[in-house]
Amino acid sequence: MNKMNKMDEMNKTMIQNQIIAAVNAVRNSNPLAGSITNVITIHFVANAQLAVGGSAAMVFLPEEGAFLANAGNAFYINVGGLLPIHEETLPQTAKTLHDAGKPWVLDPVAIGIGSVRTKALLQFKEYKPSIIRGNASEIIALAGLWGLGGENKSNVRGVDSTDAVIAAKEAAVSLAKWTGGAVAVSGETDLVTNGSIIAFSHGGSHFMEKITGSGCSLGGVAAVYAAESDSFTAALTATAVYNLAGKRAEQKADGPGRFQVHFLDELYNATAEDIATNPFEIETV
Amino acid sequence: MNKMNKMDEMNKTMIQNQIIAAVNAVRNSNPLAGSITNVITIHFVANAQLAVGGSAAMVFLPEEGAFLANAGNAFYINVGGLLPIHEETLPQTAKTLHDAGKPWVLDPVAIGIGSVRTKALLQFKEYKPSIIRGNASEIIALAGLWGLGGENKSNVRGVDSTDAVIAAKEAAVSLAKWTGGAVAVSGETDLVTNGSIIAFSHGGSHFMEKITGSGCSLGGVAAVYAAESDSFTAALTATAVYNLAGKRAEQKADGPGRFQVHFLDELYNATAEDIATNPFEIETV
Amino acid sequence: MNKMNKMDEMNKTMIQNQIIAAVNAVRNSNPLAGSITNVITIHFVANAQLAVGGSAAMVFLPEEGAFLANAGNAFYINVGGLLPIHEETLPQTAKTLHDAGKPWVLDPVAIGIGSVRTKALLQFKEYKPSIIRGNASEIIALAGLWGLGGENKSNVRGVDSTDAVIAAKEAAVSLAKWTGGAVAVSGETDLVTNGSIIAFSHGGSHFMEKITGSGCSLGGVAAVYAAESDSFTAALTATAVYNLAGKRAEQKADGPGRFQVHFLDELYNATAEDIATNPFEIETV
Repeated sequence: MNKMNKMDEMNKTMIQNQIIAAVNAVRNSNPLAGSITNVITIHFVANAQLAVGGSAAMVFLPEEGAFLANAGNAFYINVGGLLPIHEETLPQTAKTLHDAGKPWVLDPVAIGIGSVRTKALLQFKEYKPSIIRGNASEIIALAGLWGLGGENKSNVRGVDSTDAVIAAKEAAVSLAKWTGGAVAVSGETDLVTNGSIIAFSHGGSHFMEKITGSGCSLGGVAAVYAAESDSFTAALTATAVYNLAGKRAEQKADGPGRFQVHFLDELYNATAEDIATNPFEIETV
Repeated sequence: MNKMNKMDEMNKTMIQNQIIAAVNAVRNSNPLAGSITNVITIHFVANAQLAVGGSAAMVFLPEEGAFLANAGNAFYINVGGLLPIHEETLPQTAKTLHDAGKPWVLDPVAIGIGSVRTKALLQFKEYKPSIIRGNASEIIALAGLWGLGGENKSNVRGVDSTDAVIAAKEAAVSLAKWTGGAVAVSGETDLVTNGSIIAFSHGGSHFMEKITGSGCSLGGVAAVYAAESDSFTAALTATAVYNLAGKRAEQKADGPGRFQVHFLDELYNATAEDIATNPFEIETV
Repeated sequence: MNKMNKMDEMNKTMIQNQIIAAVNAVRNSNPLAGSITNVITIHFVANAQLAVGGSAAMVFLPEEGAFLANAGNAFYINVGGLLPIHEETLPQTAKTLHDAGKPWVLDPVAIGIGSVRTKALLQFKEYKPSIIRGNASEIIALAGLWGLGGENKSNVRGVDSTDAVIAAKEAAVSLAKWTGGAVAVSGETDLVTNGSIIAFSHGGSHFMEKITGSGCSLGGVAAVYAAESDSFTAALTATAVYNLAGKRAEQKADGPGRFQVHFLDELYNATAEDIATNPFEIETV
């Protein structure tokens, strides 16, 4: 990482103030972020959303997706664990969100597995998700799928990523420029960009990879913050609270079982100031 | 709450003895309560049912619903997270339960979202669930949907309730009179009625709203008790053990993660006497 | 149990070395075991697979099942909580696994409930699962369904077993001889056989029956080990680590909530040597 210049330092302070505002606004307003998400981690996603102060509701049917898209303050769409009905529900809900101007988060988990997933992800291009969250391989693959950069070659293996976060920098910037929103790339150091500035967020735990749903629930939490702030702030706030809670929970756990329990508690107990001061640097694109 | 009169005091002692009998009978007989319930909280529902001494089995297909309805001792139906197959499974299972005279619990979660949910809930009217469990908004909305009282206006927002329990008193009594069973309304003070007497049960924790599935699992636990007692006793026993376990778990937790863990332990460890003496008052309708 | 003879003692030492090799290989290679499994316990299955060092991915659609069957190192199929799409996904995935020569684990949970489940289980006979895992009733019922022994009468009640493990010995041996793989029967003392030798594994906890998914997740973990060892070693390693982790977790818990949390931690922290020396005896068929 290069040293941050004066402009970046000013940006950072401004961003920290926005993070504090986002965290407090969510705890005050308890916004509803609906989700269409895989059944593997669905319970953990909901509990993480509640822990940071949001409200959760998960649906599967097309008409219920449209209902929630309109009724809620933001939305989370995760393409894992697809069922047949998702072929209808996913595009219809994304279109509803787009038409209603609601912020929504896309998690292109395990992109590359199967034609239904690929077709849905292709359809999402025009509905411009406010935030795209994935690991490096997924972000690179999505940029490729959307024709926004094909230099990099990704290596998606199920939900695991074999690419480093920095390799996805170009793809992330391209995606953010296309959507006009933000992109968050999860890895050892996390990258969040809105296409013009990039934040690198530090922390987390090696246990994050040992519990199912740390990525999915981060997307769900980003949707909660997106209900109360701009996409970049929301994505960075979610990333920061995850890095903070992960680091703290690791200190109290010696296995993934207790880690997951303490992680939810740390999400719940983190103050806005703690989240805003979790280490990160800013870089101008 | 008014002071309880002599008759109510006598009722209360009788009810406490029935609670003790229900708790012990469940722990001795390990009754099977099948469920058709949403996939968001399904794991937590099953674990709560096991913790109080029941047996759990969850299905989705129509023929499996009918099989379990006949094979089990009681049943739990929750209309959250609907999938397309539920359009067939829900009415068929409810009819089977009704025809077989099996006790069953209905959780009209998020009533008002979508036509499939509404249609299923309408169909349930004639199959008369033994216990209906919901928050104030859901109970008011169900009474309205069934044409059993339309004075009140409910405010259902996803799974959250914006109505106070006491506002649902009339609706709860109407529903209980229609089904001949019991209705349990969850809130800060919980209300349980069989249409002629009302119990107000105290306890619980603010963390109950911070974990997904506290309401769903309460319904599942009520089904377990319904296998071994009358509907009113079952609904009140489930409500009482939840209030007791919630209060105790809160003392051991400083976040929703540990709260949920301790909550299951407290469900498991509560004695029949502890549950029966958890604070409640009786009122005659 | 009879005393072990000299030959059995030699076998035991060899088996212990294979267990150590399996545990270490999994932790080094992080193999991907895909799953088609019920939504009730799916999160717990994934977390258990991660805890022992594997990688997890769960799908529902036929083409995604086939993709994962080919992409992964092993597979887990559990017939609980069937959805309509499983009627296509189950046989197609099993066929793909068989044709590709991939090791896979079958969990015939709640065999006997419904025609879809029965039909799928019948189809699996020709695709010869590498490992079959179930309780005594399920193993006896599967052997009966496959025409491999009909003397015993099983008593399946949902997911509970009312038969003792030893009553399933003959059925387990018959199934193992048919598949050329291994069969693991869960109970107070667990039985694992490859058709020629039988291991009896000790340990576990009474809390295992008080948490949903201990059986399902054991099957998922067996699939992880099957990616790196022969079927018998994989089945016995999974059984041994469950018995070890269960015994250890019980000492740290006074209820099913904390038991489940500590159980995952003990799965994660158990050394290869600890797992290999968890008590078991060998018997030649």
